[in-house]
Amino acid sequence: MTSSTVTPGAFSEETSADVVGASFAGTPDPRLRQIMTSLVHHLHAFVRDVEPTEAEWAAAIDFLTRVGQTCDDTRQEFVLLSDVLGVSMLVDAINHRVSGGATESTVLGPFHMVESPPRELGADISLDRNGPPCVLAGQVRSTDGTPLAGAQVDVWQANGAGFYDVQQPDVQPERNLRGLFTTDADGRFWLRTVVPRYYPIPTDGPVGALLTATGRHPYRPAHIHLIGAAEGHRPVVTHLFVEGSPYLDSDAVFGVKESLIRPVTVVDDPERAACHGVDNPFRLIEFDLVLEPASDPR
Amino acid sequence: MTSSTVTPGAFSEETSADVVGASFAGTPDPRLRQIMTSLVHHLHAFVRDVEPTEAEWAAAIDFLTRVGQTCDDTRQEFVLLSDVLGVSMLVDAINHRVSGGATESTVLGPFHMVESPPRELGADISLDRNGPPCVLAGQVRSTDGTPLAGAQVDVWQANGAGFYDVQQPDVQPERNLRGLFTTDADGRFWLRTVVPRYYPIPTDGPVGALLTATGRHPYRPAHIHLIGAAEGHRPVVTHLFVEGSPYLDSDAVFGVKESLIRPVTVVDDPERAACHGVDNPFRLIEFDLVLEPASDPR
Ligand SMILES: [Fe+2]
Ligand SMILES: [Fe+2]
Repeated sequence: MTSSTVTPGAFSEETSADVVGASFAGTPDPRLRQIMTSLVHHLHAFVRDVEPTEAEWAAAIDFLTRVGQTCDDTRQEFVLLSDVLGVSMLVDAINHRVSGGATESTVLGPFHMVESPPRELGADISLDRNGPPCVLAGQVRSTDGTPLAGAQVDVWQANGAGFYDVQQPDVQPERNLRGLFTTDADGRFWLRTVVPRYYPIPTDGPVGALLTATGRHPYRPAHIHLIGAAEGHRPVVTHLFVEGSPYLDSDAVFGVKESLIRPVTVVDDPERAACHGVDNPFRLIEFDLVLEPASDPR
Repeated sequence: MTSSTVTPGAFSEETSADVVGASFAGTPDPRLRQIMTSLVHHLHAFVRDVEPTEAEWAAAIDFLTRVGQTCDDTRQEFVLLSDVLGVSMLVDAINHRVSGGATESTVLGPFHMVESPPRELGADISLDRNGPPCVLAGQVRSTDGTPLAGAQVDVWQANGAGFYDVQQPDVQPERNLRGLFTTDADGRFWLRTVVPRYYPIPTDGPVGALLTATGRHPYRPAHIHLIGAAEGHRPVVTHLFVEGSPYLDSDAVFGVKESLIRPVTVVDDPERAACHGVDNPFRLIEFDLVLEPASDPR
């Protein structure tokens, strides 16, 4: 301890990241060692960049503590923090690099907490009829264009007031606006639903306070969640976003991708309306799911 | 939303930090805007660097949640996390840049939770007599060498078994090993105590589990906490570290600075022993506190 060279004890503003990073050099798991070393370097770079006062650092500690204490069995405020800081979408992007025209992914979100009930093609998943009626139709294909028969399409969404069934257990029927569909011989699926509304993420916790303090709104643009899955293919967790919805350019969780935006068209075709069991003219959203073969090198 | 240029909606691995950073552009408080923008850039750089799997990110979220939920009125696990990642010491270093030979600072730590009782110079603060008896003596000076009479020296420490009084309320007398002293006309202070032992930070929470997983020990080398304060001067929150203590080169919270390490010497001087009211020979630790004038430009 008499040397003034950079030893594990010689902590300074300049050496802190190296000194603390070195303390993790003995981590048995090389992946954990890599993560902790990187975390220390980026975290210390952040602190050196903003030079927090002691009061500011205490406020940061207090904020993180309250985020943790807001979590319970049905609320995950740290996921929400990760969402509004765009980290959830970045992790999604890193883990779902797609190529060859495959459908892009976006965040799963917190509302896939109950299993979607299997339903027949053409079924109406809007049990509360709250919102503008609409047909959703599409095809599941492989990236080479082959239609995927027997593929699974899991669909869940908010109603026309912007609420999921689990948010309104006393108001909405169970499993409202949820359905698990299986594609036909041509890889096609179709169902009846309503056009969902944009909605706010929970704002009554510390993350909501952060949004308020930073002048950000809490809204997500109108969207329908989908998971497409077929044998021999990588499943995709995604949304379709409703063209023209407010907040498409400022999704609170950064989930929007241009390739996922779809118009609600109005179709005037009595035969097709009859086939779907809806009045003519009718609203239609079309959304295909294109999956990558699972064996594709990433 | 039809442009493919970088718009607020055009989130990608490459643009994520800019897109999310831009979402904070409307933050009314410029300091908060600076902090959030910097945080986003460093956080996204970390994520791009380590490319966490979705399972790894979920594990990180779970860890942070448990850190928050381990906190209560007497336990601050996020401060402990900040400590073991060296961030508390970095924030301390940034906020207490000293010059002109002033005593260096180190972390306050969690055990200054009760007020130290005012005591007469020469008093024995070891009420439980647990540890090797020792005299602690020093002088409070200004950086120009002027002795500071009437300065306050707040001292607190663990006993010879490595425990603070508040950790053993049923075993140790109240306010054991705590005292608030006032320097004499020459700026000098002296008191009787024991040589403290090294001790572990709390290991029964998620931070302890992190240390275990990364092969780090939880110990702090033996030290005595001091706060020196005098009129017209910037106070200093610091420790003296006991030379030769285990863990001086691997303090779990990175608090050691070479300038703060002091030997325990053995003094054979019957007159001085009598003056301190201790047997001859006696152990002595000397530690001066040198304070910067408050008006000094930083
Ligand atoms: Fe949603
Ligand atoms: Fe301590």
